[in-house]
Amino acid sequence: MKKITSEQWSPEVLEKLIPGHSVDCVILGYRNGNLYVLLLEWKGTGIWGLPGGFIYRDEDMDCAAGRVLKERTGLDYPFLSQFHTFGDYGRRDPAQTPQLLETWDAEDTRLRDWIIQRFITTGYFALVNIDACGPLKPDPLSSQCSWIPSRTLPLLAFDHKEIIHTAMEHLRRQVNYLPVGESLLPETFTMKDLQLLHEAILGKKLDRANFQRKMLKSELLIRGARKTGTGPHKAPYLYRFLPEKQ
Amino acid sequence: MKKITSEQWSPEVLEKLIPGHSVDCVILGYRNGNLYVLLLEWKGTGIWGLPGGFIYRDEDMDCAAGRVLKERTGLDYPFLSQFHTFGDYGRRDPAQTPQLLETWDAEDTRLRDWIIQRFITTGYFALVNIDACGPLKPDPLSSQCSWIPSRTLPLLAFDHKEIIHTAMEHLRRQVNYLPVGESLLPETFTMKDLQLLHEAILGKKLDRANFQRKMLKSELLIRGARKTGTGPHKAPYLYRFLPEKQ
Repeated sequence: MKKITSEQWSPEVLEKLIPGHSVDCVILGYRNGNLYVLLLEWKGTGIWGLPGGFIYRDEDMDCAAGRVLKERTGLDYPFLSQFHTFGDYGRRDPAQTPQLLETWDAEDTRLRDWIIQRFITTGYFALVNIDACGPLKPDPLSSQCSWIPSRTLPLLAFDHKEIIHTAMEHLRRQVNYLPVGESLLPETFTMKDLQLLHEAILGKKLDRANFQRKMLKSELLIRGARKTGTGPHKAPYLYRFLPEKQ
Repeated sequence: MKKITSEQWSPEVLEKLIPGHSVDCVILGYRNGNLYVLLLEWKGTGIWGLPGGFIYRDEDMDCAAGRVLKERTGLDYPFLSQFHTFGDYGRRDPAQTPQLLETWDAEDTRLRDWIIQRFITTGYFALVNIDACGPLKPDPLSSQCSWIPSRTLPLLAFDHKEIIHTAMEHLRRQVNYLPVGESLLPETFTMKDLQLLHEAILGKKLDRANFQRKMLKSELLIRGARKTGTGPHKAPYLYRFLPEKQ
């Protein structure tokens, strides 16, 4: 396996970056009732990680998150939002993932020092419709970039599992009072479409009657006409999200 | 005015700190229907700032926030929670607050370099009952540490005004679906007590009937007995918060 060296990641580039602070993006994708996480496999390791990277000395942190995501995946999300900063001293203990360090040239002192330094990372989050995304491109450090089902995560680097769980918690807390499905569902949708989305986010089946009662009470939705062309059964109502309340 | 020098803030101490990352605490206090922010006045400047500080190289970031707050104010809040990280390139432009730099000895290169470096800061937040707090102690950099009414903020350093506003927004978003008053109100309280708290947080008067209807619908409260000993009028009901839903 070819190791990463300073030739690929030059001292001049490292000099332009803020040391000790990174960004990581948790991109949750939704398709047909299932939730996925966008992950990259680090070359030849079997270890996966979130799309992440560093901040230039003259760059806003929010811009760095958008740039990193675009560089690594070709995706462009203006609605990427910050959810938490992970600053535990031991969060990036190299002993947890010895294989990762093997992919770099440990003889290259400057590169090794950069990699093994303590990093505080800020997590950014987006919930997207997979069918609306373009093709995924792995970066030079990774062999593949894929949508992985959120319920069957592979071996993850450092504390990336905790970062994903924190993003999921963030989403679960929002689901009953924010129109989180707005970018995922079509403009009008049935109560069943919405229930499938909530079930994917919460990771459990919900009671149909209770769900409907709760959603109608939430003041998030407005009911429109009945769906047409759905066969001989009584057509379900179509709903849309109300604009977010201030 | 005596300037701050490396004698007070030694190179050995700076060496033990993570460069470029700070923590700032927005401590909102509640008393008798009014909301206050805990602020320190930087010696001789007329400029105020949040209680904040730096992170030791071997210290978790969350612990640093707790330590900084305790060091600066004597207050001990295990319920300090992170709300946002501020990483804009220009957030700490010294030109905004030239007076602040005058309080340090600019001849002292090491100290000046430390102070003028770019900092990303993580904001921590707590909402506390002022009457339950101990006496406040200013730190060596500040002449006073005080509760300042949130609606009449003084001149603030750097982007501290934005940090406070972001914390307030965070609180306003929570007020209708989390029991934010739990640590502020007594165990049982009247609907009027709760309304006064919400009015302080939202910064506006609320309609009594609408507020009561909304709160009863929120599933946050449980109604108990009527208040006793309140005079000849019909006694109001007492409420308590339900344990937070998962």
